Amino acid sequence: MNERMLDVAVDEARAGLREGGIPIGAALFAADGTLLGRGHNRRVQNDDPSIHAETDAFRDAGRQRDYRSTTMVTTLAPCWYCSGLVRQFGIGSLVVGENRTFDGGLDWLISAGVTVTVLDDDRCVTMMSEFVAAQPILWNEDIGVPE
Amino acid sequence: MNERMLDVAVDEARAGLREGGIPIGAALFAADGTLLGRGHNRRVQNDDPSIHAETDAFRDAGRQRDYRSTTMVTTLAPCWYCSGLVRQFGIGSLVVGENRTFDGGLDWLISAGVTVTVLDDDRCVTMMSEFVAAQPILWNEDIGVPE
Repeated sequence: MNERMLDVAVDEARAGLREGGIPIGAALFAADGTLLGRGHNRRVQNDDPSIHAETDAFRDAGRQRDYRSTTMVTTLAPCWYCSGLVRQFGIGSLVVGENRTFDGGLDWLISAGVTVTVLDDDRCVTMMSEFVAAQPILWNEDIGVPE
Repeated sequence: MNERMLDVAVDEARAGLREGGIPIGAALFAADGTLLGRGHNRRVQNDDPSIHAETDAFRDAGRQRDYRSTTMVTTLAPCWYCSGLVRQFGIGSLVVGENRTFDGGLDWLISAGVTVTVLDDDRCVTMMSEFVAAQPILWNEDIGVPE
């Protein structure tokens, strides 16, 4: 099921790339595999620094009363901002496409009780490493690294 | 200067309360005191769980290239989601109206190098404690506490 869920996040990342944006996608699923929300980074498209992929998927899922049985799937290891989202709302599981390009707070989430799975998916590694090589300034802006 | 900056966040929190929302406000300031962005929690008003006060102020400030000299001011100690925002984007200073009603990740931010000031402001304590007493279910929803 993880691979099928990741496919949705990869589709979102590719949509972001086509829009000229940062290619990171995410999706939130219920325990039975129902898609609750999906989205991608919108820094460039919406000129909005607050919308990372995980934030967008979380927003798209609307107001939920209990996230413990949900799974957040993302093409790239979440940054502190998005790791904080997962922890605060008690999202039970996190599936990560890859953590080679960027390794966020995965250990922090594991220690907080989140079930973390890293798929090390070739599509995710290629898409993100090519993007970072092509647009390093934009990437650094997105993770708060000053010039 | 902290009190004057907090006044902006309090105004935002009160605006949220008038709109029927959760009364938490925030603002982002440059080192010279220039207001960069301001906002408040919009869970109820926008039906959007992703917009906490700090997120809203961060978004309102638009894309910035370097947050190290900025100060985030918020009426209530930030949750993990908003603490993650502060940490990831390297916001240098955090001014908190109160941390009696909710104590987020302040120690975590201090250990990450963020300068944290807690003002223990009576207006903030009263507004938030009255809200939590009046609407405990909505408050728990906003911080991811299941029923």
